[in-house]
Amino acid sequence: MEWKVIGIIAAICTTSGFIPQIIRGIRTKRLDDISPVMYILLIVGLSLWLSYGIHIKDMIIIVANAAALAFSLFIIFLRFKYMKQR
Amino acid sequence: MEWKVIGIIAAICTTSGFIPQIIRGIRTKRLDDISPVMYILLIVGLSLWLSYGIHIKDMIIIVANAAALAFSLFIIFLRFKYMKQR
Repeated sequence: MEWKVIGIIAAICTTSGFIPQIIRGIRTKRLDDISPVMYILLIVGLSLWLSYGIHIKDMIIIVANAAALAFSLFIIFLRFKYMKQR
Repeated sequence: MEWKVIGIIAAICTTSGFIPQIIRGIRTKRLDDISPVMYILLIVGLSLWLSYGIHIKDMIIIVANAAALAFSLFIIFLRFKYMKQR
């Protein structure tokens, strides 16, 4: 039981971590230093985790990875949007 | 069996994703646009995943999270190192 709680806290930390990155990017209108290759690998990896979560019907894995995937896609979108505007 | 392979590929993608970020940072000597709050949350989350992996004795979870944790710590170290040098 307590390990399930640790898993949920871990998932919240690694997923919500993308939010301060989005806020920073919107505030500074700069995400140049972010590696697009990193985010492409993350998007592939998170999509696989999501399909795995759907396969084993685990709501924590599904929600955490779907949210992280959406955040990652948004960060990479913002990066190219801001670079194009300059 | 095939889902185990998908899990391993997913873990490789999300963990190795940090490597292009490290390479980019070392090459440009700039990681200013990276959110330190994001990496602090990641470090907390990955540490919890690692302790969970040790608890359930799952080598994939242990290795993937230990490596991701080491990479995250190195990125945050590089960020402040490069900012201090300017």
